[in-house]
Amino acid sequence: MPATPEFFNVQPVQAALETVFAHWTPQPRQETIAVRAALGRVLVTSSYSPIDLPQFPRSAMDGYAVRAADTFGASQSLPAYLTWVGSVKMGAQATISIQSGQAVEIHTGGMLPPGADAVVMIERTQSLGQNEIEVLAPVAPGENVIQVSEDISRGDLILPAGHRLRPADIGGLLAVGIVTVEVIALPHVGILSCGDELVPPEEIPAPGQVRDINAHTLAALVLQVGGEPVVLGLARDTLEDYQSQAEAGFPHVDILVMTAGSSVSTRDLTRDVINRLGKPGVLQHGLAVKPGKPTILAVCDNKPVIGLPGNPVSAFLVARQIVAPIIKRLLGEKPSFPPTIQAILSSNVASITGREDTVPVRLVERDGVLVAEPLFGKSNLIFTLVQADGLIRVPLNDNGLKAGITVEVTLLE
Amino acid sequence: MPATPEFFNVQPVQAALETVFAHWTPQPRQETIAVRAALGRVLVTSSYSPIDLPQFPRSAMDGYAVRAADTFGASQSLPAYLTWVGSVKMGAQATISIQSGQAVEIHTGGMLPPGADAVVMIERTQSLGQNEIEVLAPVAPGENVIQVSEDISRGDLILPAGHRLRPADIGGLLAVGIVTVEVIALPHVGILSCGDELVPPEEIPAPGQVRDINAHTLAALVLQVGGEPVVLGLARDTLEDYQSQAEAGFPHVDILVMTAGSSVSTRDLTRDVINRLGKPGVLQHGLAVKPGKPTILAVCDNKPVIGLPGNPVSAFLVARQIVAPIIKRLLGEKPSFPPTIQAILSSNVASITGREDTVPVRLVERDGVLVAEPLFGKSNLIFTLVQADGLIRVPLNDNGLKAGITVEVTLLE
Repeated sequence: MPATPEFFNVQPVQAALETVFAHWTPQPRQETIAVRAALGRVLVTSSYSPIDLPQFPRSAMDGYAVRAADTFGASQSLPAYLTWVGSVKMGAQATISIQSGQAVEIHTGGMLPPGADAVVMIERTQSLGQNEIEVLAPVAPGENVIQVSEDISRGDLILPAGHRLRPADIGGLLAVGIVTVEVIALPHVGILSCGDELVPPEEIPAPGQVRDINAHTLAALVLQVGGEPVVLGLARDTLEDYQSQAEAGFPHVDILVMTAGSSVSTRDLTRDVINRLGKPGVLQHGLAVKPGKPTILAVCDNKPVIGLPGNPVSAFLVARQIVAPIIKRLLGEKPSFPPTIQAILSSNVASITGREDTVPVRLVERDGVLVAEPLFGKSNLIFTLVQADGLIRVPLNDNGLKAGITVEVTLLE
Repeated sequence: MPATPEFFNVQPVQAALETVFAHWTPQPRQETIAVRAALGRVLVTSSYSPIDLPQFPRSAMDGYAVRAADTFGASQSLPAYLTWVGSVKMGAQATISIQSGQAVEIHTGGMLPPGADAVVMIERTQSLGQNEIEVLAPVAPGENVIQVSEDISRGDLILPAGHRLRPADIGGLLAVGIVTVEVIALPHVGILSCGDELVPPEEIPAPGQVRDINAHTLAALVLQVGGEPVVLGLARDTLEDYQSQAEAGFPHVDILVMTAGSSVSTRDLTRDVINRLGKPGVLQHGLAVKPGKPTILAVCDNKPVIGLPGNPVSAFLVARQIVAPIIKRLLGEKPSFPPTIQAILSSNVASITGREDTVPVRLVERDGVLVAEPLFGKSNLIFTLVQADGLIRVPLNDNGLKAGITVEVTLLE
């Protein structure tokens, strides 16, 4: 029987996401891990310093620990004369106490000895033999000294809950002796590919068949965003097989992503399968984007379920816009500034209002100017993405972008 | 005996790197891995498509496969009448042959049947009962059809050698049946911390001691850049211990990074230890940067060896500028566009010409404008970095940046 056309009640991306968020209470799992191994992980709770850092006054320079008052008025022509009474050993408590008129040799990071309140840089001194030095410039009290708690004070906030740990953050935590940390467990994101035409990439497709690549591009994206992909395999285009595979994977994942053929009947199938997974089921069918219009957003038993178009480019670009923010929300991550780069658009890009278009671009440098060249192509050609350096967007209410304008390019990494 | 001051013959970062590159022939190790597991890995050789993709003409729409000529002149008021003769099954070879006046139902991604040369979208047709359809608009030959090799042709370049694999690239390789790939093995980057004042982060420092955090911030950075960190431990400030630990780790790494206390004597020690590791030894001592001036660059037995300042902020910021590009060179990676974001500078930043300054900034939004607030602080305070969202640079030949200008902020991730 001939098929019938299909109509969507499309929504912009942000509105569709808000609908999911309104029906979903994220309940992230947590785990305690070593700070050394916590790069890229997201903190469950805010972290506060248990100590003052530094814990003792330290020299910021190579030179001499002195009483600052002894150097007041010192100059090249009228130096202050001090007696060298010893050296501070690195890593040891400074034991020599300084009296007026005395100086103790100290290295960068060394502990300021009792009685001293400043450090004279070695470059501003002159040795007059074994025990006497000239100071050629005055120092103020506290000069070249890192005071107790100058880096951080006991009780101060180190990092807020929801922060994703960067290399320097790992250093900050370890510096104050925090060696384990409670983080959000990696969200398990199930990926199920549906389609009678699909075979695993290792197989040689028969005529009419194609390799399933969605499972693997989406798995890589999930990894990048901070989730743990769970590839659930291939389902056939029957309600029985599709349903049973979705149900088998569902209990083991925090988020379920299904990609299905782009035909109307397959999409209806996805809708039915999702609605049987749990309440409330499908919340939104249709996004005001290109590519990716026939996307399904759902929540079943408090787990987000996303039905992506089967075509690999649409699936990948929509996953960046829909699946990535859902993973980040489960991670409790604060929104970050998306890294973009500005470039000059090389040619006109047509669009229609009421739809946000994503267009892959190649970046090339011409006469020292960075130029973004749109890669036009049918939305199902994966190699338009392989050739792309980044993406530009035509906003919802614009009907195109003119050649020569400056565009923000989100880098594909 | 009182210490003596120290002088450097400083070089800008790029010149110092070029010196290393001139004395070093990268010999990356290689390995063959599954494409599915190759996210972020760098290709050893250029990759070419073994097949045409698609391998058969596919429909880009839900609708009817037809002979385009049968639809010429068709309109809403004067439709073309076609006889429906069957449907193309997804994933199967299209066997029904189309004659003039016939149409075959087809789904998106389905194989175009013999005799058809175009697809009419379902939305542009009307069913007149069981076997007849009206076509309400003409299609051109090839319309709504993805032709054989339209995505990529057999023999075409997929990705060049030196490319770092992104999610879509994994999809592109798998789409044409490439399931394993030869990649550069992760460079092993040895990290040795030297200093009598250092204890492991797990220990409680005695007075005068501090926790070694360099090993772990640098390990995290190495991971981010695509290397495999090898933490070699802590060395004492004696030539014997420092040398023996460096020699023990050296044969097992591709690049050696040493961080040592910032005192003059410790730096001299680092220099001596490096010079004994192999020829030519130390190539450059001193960088025209702040922080990080007392950095040592060397090549020993065709392995780069970098002596970083002991202070954690300097060590980290110099490692980004020096160690990261060396790792990328060993990976054979093409230079990429660094992700930056533009912001308005909130206050003046002083510098001196002849030195490139790196200044951590916090990003805040004020009245819809992104503002970069410099985090001033002694260069050895790790928490200036922990609080930072990004970094700005004062170029070599500028003596500062004025409040209110637009700056490029490199995001700290």
